[in-house]
Amino acid sequence: MGDPGGIGAEVIVQALDDPRIRGRARFVIYGFSALLVQEAERRGIEPRWFRIPHESARARKPLFDPVVVLDFSEFGEIESFPHEPSRAGGLASKAYVEEAITDALRPADDPRFIDALVTAPISKESWQMAGYRWPGHTELLENRSRAKRSAMMFWSPRLRVVLATTHLALMEIRNQLTIGRVFDPIDLGHEACRKMGIEHPRIAVTGLNPHAGEKGLFGDEEIRIIQPAIDLARRGGIDARGPFPADTIFIAAAAGEYDLVVAMYHDQGLIPVKLLGWDSAVNWTIGIPFVRTSPDHGTAFDIAGRAKASAGSMIAAIELALRVTENRGAERPPL
Amino acid sequence: MGDPGGIGAEVIVQALDDPRIRGRARFVIYGFSALLVQEAERRGIEPRWFRIPHESARARKPLFDPVVVLDFSEFGEIESFPHEPSRAGGLASKAYVEEAITDALRPADDPRFIDALVTAPISKESWQMAGYRWPGHTELLENRSRAKRSAMMFWSPRLRVVLATTHLALMEIRNQLTIGRVFDPIDLGHEACRKMGIEHPRIAVTGLNPHAGEKGLFGDEEIRIIQPAIDLARRGGIDARGPFPADTIFIAAAAGEYDLVVAMYHDQGLIPVKLLGWDSAVNWTIGIPFVRTSPDHGTAFDIAGRAKASAGSMIAAIELALRVTENRGAERPPL
Repeated sequence: MGDPGGIGAEVIVQALDDPRIRGRARFVIYGFSALLVQEAERRGIEPRWFRIPHESARARKPLFDPVVVLDFSEFGEIESFPHEPSRAGGLASKAYVEEAITDALRPADDPRFIDALVTAPISKESWQMAGYRWPGHTELLENRSRAKRSAMMFWSPRLRVVLATTHLALMEIRNQLTIGRVFDPIDLGHEACRKMGIEHPRIAVTGLNPHAGEKGLFGDEEIRIIQPAIDLARRGGIDARGPFPADTIFIAAAAGEYDLVVAMYHDQGLIPVKLLGWDSAVNWTIGIPFVRTSPDHGTAFDIAGRAKASAGSMIAAIELALRVTENRGAERPPL
Repeated sequence: MGDPGGIGAEVIVQALDDPRIRGRARFVIYGFSALLVQEAERRGIEPRWFRIPHESARARKPLFDPVVVLDFSEFGEIESFPHEPSRAGGLASKAYVEEAITDALRPADDPRFIDALVTAPISKESWQMAGYRWPGHTELLENRSRAKRSAMMFWSPRLRVVLATTHLALMEIRNQLTIGRVFDPIDLGHEACRKMGIEHPRIAVTGLNPHAGEKGLFGDEEIRIIQPAIDLARRGGIDARGPFPADTIFIAAAAGEYDLVVAMYHDQGLIPVKLLGWDSAVNWTIGIPFVRTSPDHGTAFDIAGRAKASAGSMIAAIELALRVTENRGAERPPL
């Protein structure tokens, strides 16, 4: 459910009321039931879910209802969660996601096993106030699932992007960008595209510097790091090309010339994703052992609790998780 | 005319054949006449211009024809300029622009004075091969005009952007970004918007780091540099706001919430400009003592000389130069 002060509860309530979503899977909401009920009432939605306290004996038995709320009521009342960063919001949203990750990592025959995890936005400031130093969900997921390598992918109808670096100061990239840090997102992105049915993904890799460094005139990361990573991928049979100037390659990708762009840093990849895919872009964490997606927006504290938030991106996130899970199922050997 | 191996000659020939352009001013082409003639023939365009060797006595008298070519034939034949970076192309294109700058800086009553300069793209690699270390036209213009501060602005129908830093390695920003380097583009951008008739420009300033640093979590440039620059501008009566996360502010600006975005670096500003304004975005150098615009594309060696290049951006660049010049004229005291 993400931060209780944000728009998580309201977009979840709307999404699970959507006929395109309901009935395609069974859903478990890790969150705060009272808030979900309030948001449902505010939107005139009938609460169709079954509430179970998350630490109760009942929660350890199989969950059969179409929508179950695993209720974390111990973190406060509705009033405890203001529409701004808060310690209470940090403590609660961290507990929700930790329990969801635990369930996603259970053996498939465990009654609490889940196939896929869709996360509503947390507030990094709330997490800081609660004493948690994780820069975001993604880094926590990587740690808890012991993934040796993983990457943030953004999936939208017109554009798909994977990031080589994520939540760090721009000037810190010089200490982080290595051949491996560029090769991994190419390789993981290639695998993800194949999972989604693209047999021979065409992958464009951006440069780090303006004009992709113009052959070393402005910065040498293209020569020292990015080109060797592309060469490595190509030797492995991946159709990766570049490094391309970032200010024009997204136009080519959006026009269909590439299935995927590997971008070097957060804003380089997210500016075009958000400009072209607003409300339909989904964040997909690739390289971890379970399916995880999330909507491509933040807590939106400024509009939270006012029945204004659109569930478009949350619906897109759930739909992508359903598609990947269904495709993954198809790959499995028959039981 | 820019690099003779690029698409400069062909987009100029097309642009000056456009009825929206012809007749609104008198034009002087600093370039290579034989190449212009060849491109005109290739496109079936009648060469309407009057050729004058640039160093002849005639070139020092008033130029009355609607279109004059100041011909620089001493740099070689058409064959001397391949469709790739070349020393010949560097020497020629540098000579064209130096003479144009000299003319733009002449007193207004000089027969060779020009009101505005529109530059076709050069190749930085050609300039390097010719021994010129300028990273681009803009830096040369700043130097020759002795501008204490200037900035690259991109003007397109949906989005206007000014850059705080331009052609340098991304990791060099840490040595270049100062309060002054952020304040100047805000101030110059404000002035440019007012010249274009926007009385109270609403200016958004981006952060440098992901999520604008999220209050210091990823990088402190927002706190140390960008916020103080915004405060300085606001104290001077400029409606500047931010720093905003770069991955969403361009959406707000393109939706009309801001007249101008001040971006911290090349790709941060150019990715959205090119995605939203392809073929209509114009580069406008602000802060120098004369009007200078250029199309928002490069030499495009890969398609040059094949009658493929579109003159859309060159036409937009000439139109913007005409508009700014006409507005500037209106500001002058009557003679």
